[in-house]
Amino acid sequence: MTELRSVPTLDDVARTAGVSTATVSRCLNSPERVVEQTRKRVMSAVEQLGYTPNFGARAMAAKRTFTIGAIIPTMENAIFARGLQAFQEELHARGYTLLVSSSLYQPEVEDEQIRSLVARGADGLLLIGHDRDPSVYSYLQSRAIPVLSAWVYLPESDQPTVGFDNRQSMRALAQKVIDFGHRRIGMISGVTKGNDRAAARLAGLRDALAANGLDPEAMPLIETPYEIENGAVALQSLMASDDPPSVVMCGNDVLAVGALRGARDMGLSVPDDVSITGFDDIELARIVTPQITTVHVPHREMGRKAAQALIDMVEKRSTGASVELKSTLQIRDSLRDLTR
Amino acid sequence: MTELRSVPTLDDVARTAGVSTATVSRCLNSPERVVEQTRKRVMSAVEQLGYTPNFGARAMAAKRTFTIGAIIPTMENAIFARGLQAFQEELHARGYTLLVSSSLYQPEVEDEQIRSLVARGADGLLLIGHDRDPSVYSYLQSRAIPVLSAWVYLPESDQPTVGFDNRQSMRALAQKVIDFGHRRIGMISGVTKGNDRAAARLAGLRDALAANGLDPEAMPLIETPYEIENGAVALQSLMASDDPPSVVMCGNDVLAVGALRGARDMGLSVPDDVSITGFDDIELARIVTPQITTVHVPHREMGRKAAQALIDMVEKRSTGASVELKSTLQIRDSLRDLTR
Repeated sequence: MTELRSVPTLDDVARTAGVSTATVSRCLNSPERVVEQTRKRVMSAVEQLGYTPNFGARAMAAKRTFTIGAIIPTMENAIFARGLQAFQEELHARGYTLLVSSSLYQPEVEDEQIRSLVARGADGLLLIGHDRDPSVYSYLQSRAIPVLSAWVYLPESDQPTVGFDNRQSMRALAQKVIDFGHRRIGMISGVTKGNDRAAARLAGLRDALAANGLDPEAMPLIETPYEIENGAVALQSLMASDDPPSVVMCGNDVLAVGALRGARDMGLSVPDDVSITGFDDIELARIVTPQITTVHVPHREMGRKAAQALIDMVEKRSTGASVELKSTLQIRDSLRDLTR
Repeated sequence: MTELRSVPTLDDVARTAGVSTATVSRCLNSPERVVEQTRKRVMSAVEQLGYTPNFGARAMAAKRTFTIGAIIPTMENAIFARGLQAFQEELHARGYTLLVSSSLYQPEVEDEQIRSLVARGADGLLLIGHDRDPSVYSYLQSRAIPVLSAWVYLPESDQPTVGFDNRQSMRALAQKVIDFGHRRIGMISGVTKGNDRAAARLAGLRDALAANGLDPEAMPLIETPYEIENGAVALQSLMASDDPPSVVMCGNDVLAVGALRGARDMGLSVPDDVSITGFDDIELARIVTPQITTVHVPHREMGRKAAQALIDMVEKRSTGASVELKSTLQIRDSLRDLTR
């Protein structure tokens, strides 16, 4: 027990700096809310004593660690980047630190990371999408860790969701494509297994086909991971058919940009020879030529609202309310209107 | 003390599953190294007992937590994404979980996140760039936390670095630009304050100008945060001058893609009216038209080598050796050769 005495505590820092323990805690968790002079005094005491905020002690004192965990499928392309950045900015403004893990689209890796973040004291978790093994949710419930699913909106779910309706959004885009006179529609989808957003987008496109008397099962379809190169290869495969599609609808903008490159490399003009659509409206969609018709997802707003909802769950112990965001169609030059 | 008895331990899980504690630890930290049958038995015991890997206890038992922290300046564009993904893949293969924070390019936020990751038991840290307050390094040294700086190569530094020479790389690109007959050179740089990579790239361009009898101080220069929109605005500002540059060299590809868009919006043709160069060779540089001349940085290799070096420091308590990676010039259509 004598050794324990030598470990400086929050109280020691407060005493040395001549401030309250709450002020020390605020300095460590949300320094922007403390005037600079006080902050300097506290940080100098922290330095002098060699104090390390101890997760266990702080968690017991404050009932929380001011840390939120987020697990996203990939860091490699910009699909989640903008929403996550806004999520972090909002957390930071509220005095929370964000720790992010990437599951590489593998459920068992996500499972491991959830346990790791819980073990490291995360006050709450943000997950992408909602479909996962029920044991994940029961585990989090048994640990009383608030969890929020984003990038989806499922009001009927047991868990709160902050996002948009992937299925309706893709259905609306497909209806516009059909209104423009397209009948030979092909799709390059993300891998739908283990990805409820990708599966919903594919279902939305099929809804639109069926509603317009077209056969959803006859639609040429390639499923491939979200990478630019894969979009290029898939486009070339679809266009090599005897009866190639007049439009290739892609599961996201990364695939669409790849499809655009694939078309260019084949000597096909977009949209004269083939139209291409995307989903997400990330910056990629606007910097290529022609710019890509896509579904605009309000990523920053989604990130901000998810942070607010999750902090409410953590601080007020609310069970959380789902928030629906509206997506909008962005009709740009990559989609040709055949009726004109 | 009676309450503590009810908390299941690693030993309890091992006993229930009929395996060694090392196997339980491996199941939790690197499940891919355990055969499925054993893993299922262990995970079922974990589930049944409601065991949560306890950071403190595991750290004491294993002397480590199998968690590595990384702090990157931003998650918003793809500058760090590819290298970080490779870093994580290598960590994952070696049984480590990665937790990432983003400092928003603010040293005081980075400082807070370093302390947070240490408090949560990170075995080692990856930081981007090397220049920071010496108190950060002395703090980490006093806690015996290995730290590695990436995206820079500074063999003379006290800390190990895994990266490339930003200054020499930009100097080499600028020499090529000058060899192509350009004399009126403008630059759109990232914000150099608090960003040693941006400062080194600017210095490298100035080195090349001086070596070729051009006045580095006379070079038109705009410093702006790395965002596409900022590149567009800066390009237009540079080109509005009475004596506009024949080439605009950008601090990275994000600014270069923005500059390309800015030129297009002004009705300027690239490279006929103005040449544009970037830095990094992220995917953006190749999907725009014309493709952008840039410095190729081996991001995936850098991420992998950084993971290997950091794990060696954590496991073997080595002090770490710096690793230099070679950048290469990628000459593409956005740069006009005026000598032809």
